[in-house]
Amino acid sequence: MSSINTADLIGELHRRGAHRVALQLPEGLKRQGAGLAGDLKAAGFSVILSGDPCYGACDLALSALAEADVLVHIGHTPVEDHPQVICLPFEQDFDLSSLDQAIPLLQERRIGLITTVQHAHLLAAAAQYLADHGIEAVIRDGAGRTPAAGQVLGCTYRAARIDGVNEILFIGTGLFHPIGVQLATGKRVIALDPFTRNAGVVDSSRLLRRRFGLIEQAKEAESYGILLSTKSGQRRAALAERLASLDDRAMIVTLQEVSPDALLNLGFGCYVNTACPRIAYDDQVRFPVPVITPEEFEIVCGQRNWDDYAVDEIR
Amino acid sequence: MSSINTADLIGELHRRGAHRVALQLPEGLKRQGAGLAGDLKAAGFSVILSGDPCYGACDLALSALAEADVLVHIGHTPVEDHPQVICLPFEQDFDLSSLDQAIPLLQERRIGLITTVQHAHLLAAAAQYLADHGIEAVIRDGAGRTPAAGQVLGCTYRAARIDGVNEILFIGTGLFHPIGVQLATGKRVIALDPFTRNAGVVDSSRLLRRRFGLIEQAKEAESYGILLSTKSGQRRAALAERLASLDDRAMIVTLQEVSPDALLNLGFGCYVNTACPRIAYDDQVRFPVPVITPEEFEIVCGQRNWDDYAVDEIR
Repeated sequence: MSSINTADLIGELHRRGAHRVALQLPEGLKRQGAGLAGDLKAAGFSVILSGDPCYGACDLALSALAEADVLVHIGHTPVEDHPQVICLPFEQDFDLSSLDQAIPLLQERRIGLITTVQHAHLLAAAAQYLADHGIEAVIRDGAGRTPAAGQVLGCTYRAARIDGVNEILFIGTGLFHPIGVQLATGKRVIALDPFTRNAGVVDSSRLLRRRFGLIEQAKEAESYGILLSTKSGQRRAALAERLASLDDRAMIVTLQEVSPDALLNLGFGCYVNTACPRIAYDDQVRFPVPVITPEEFEIVCGQRNWDDYAVDEIR
Repeated sequence: MSSINTADLIGELHRRGAHRVALQLPEGLKRQGAGLAGDLKAAGFSVILSGDPCYGACDLALSALAEADVLVHIGHTPVEDHPQVICLPFEQDFDLSSLDQAIPLLQERRIGLITTVQHAHLLAAAAQYLADHGIEAVIRDGAGRTPAAGQVLGCTYRAARIDGVNEILFIGTGLFHPIGVQLATGKRVIALDPFTRNAGVVDSSRLLRRRFGLIEQAKEAESYGILLSTKSGQRRAALAERLASLDDRAMIVTLQEVSPDALLNLGFGCYVNTACPRIAYDDQVRFPVPVITPEEFEIVCGQRNWDDYAVDEIR
């Protein structure tokens, strides 16, 4: 089951005395916006939708507050506190028996357990299921931009850094997060997709080979655009300024959306991404030139050794 | 010859005591950004580029002012006054003899003369050239978002509204502006491309037939997203609210960039565009569903007659 708790939301809006509500949903839930808006309208609120692309609470549609008392952001835990923003989780249940596919792959009897926000509400139950099968699952408390226990984001793998634990089980969809965890921690990582029930040992070596190839290409570039996001939770200005100071051919470029068209029109030979770390890792195939991470640019500039390769995180 | 006057710009920046400069260029000039930035850096300024798509001074990169004392916007006359913004024209010369192609098409001896901003500096000379050929060219003074004499924008055809003149000569590239002028004024319009030297009588009937077809499609839509721009000079909030009140199935959707992907993900059956008027007219072929103008939505809602069709302008 997956759901947005409309009754809770209406209660919270009444408590805040809100009349005009702006709704923001991530791309995968966007089409539920009109229905939710209809429910809120029926409850007496005036509602507008934020239509801009959104992939996280790092990208709050604060401009929509020009027409609203409150911004309701669906699907993510808060990255920053804002008095006019309500972050409302979108919970996706899964069948605990899918863990049966992962258990035979575990080499340790004491592991770290992590997931993404939509499954965080089931993590304690998953740990109990594992305990029933003789495995102690350690779930690290939440903090910062991952406030839920055991939660990881594409920009923060803090919950996977657990002292004394050498193996991590990731429950969730896709390979981006578990590969990031493997690179960030250096530990053995098992990824379980609770819907397809596919489980496997994560191998980050292919990603690393691609990244090393990009770094070599980047060294040949005639100019570097240091991308600085204008999104509320992706703006790393001090980092961008430091990187721009590393090479005379580097220049800071502010961007809202890092799109292939925008990069093509700007005409730089290589971009260094200080916005959402996933952009460089996930979207390279769409981009006309290398888009590398801050740590990769440090390698290009001779400020970091290949052996000290590190995955980009926003701490 | 076409150019950005760097010496003038540096003088103005010194007068303002600026140290940190943000540069914004429209898409067609974007690749000149790095070179101009290099010139400013050599003159001692710290420079960043705004990388977001930009098609007019209605879309100022004000967020870049978080890292700069001044925003230099290249290529457009100002749409709004802002103490930290310098609008710097980008002048494109053309050969006055290209007017020879248009003169035989003129039916009147007294005409209105209009152009887009990059050619506005040559309009007086063009009028003199026409006078030498026995034609009186009337150039209306600038005002509002078209401050240059005789200037039209894709959202404002004020300079073409000249009492007692029944024929308009447009000098510039593309057919969007002259078709808009024809619809806005109802007058005979000759369009001259000064580079290809093609001249012709403008016919808006094909555009109108396409628009009437879209209006019919729009009547069948199950929901209407009323697009409200978050760009500084494209935000028509009162208009959006009035349009949203015309139909229960309508809802305001805020958007920075009106992109095909954004419209597809939102899932409305039809959109009403209150952002840049050109979006509905120029980009329909890229969009998954009808994107109509405010006036067209009034026809859909029975608030306006077909015979009162009007082109969308921001006055």
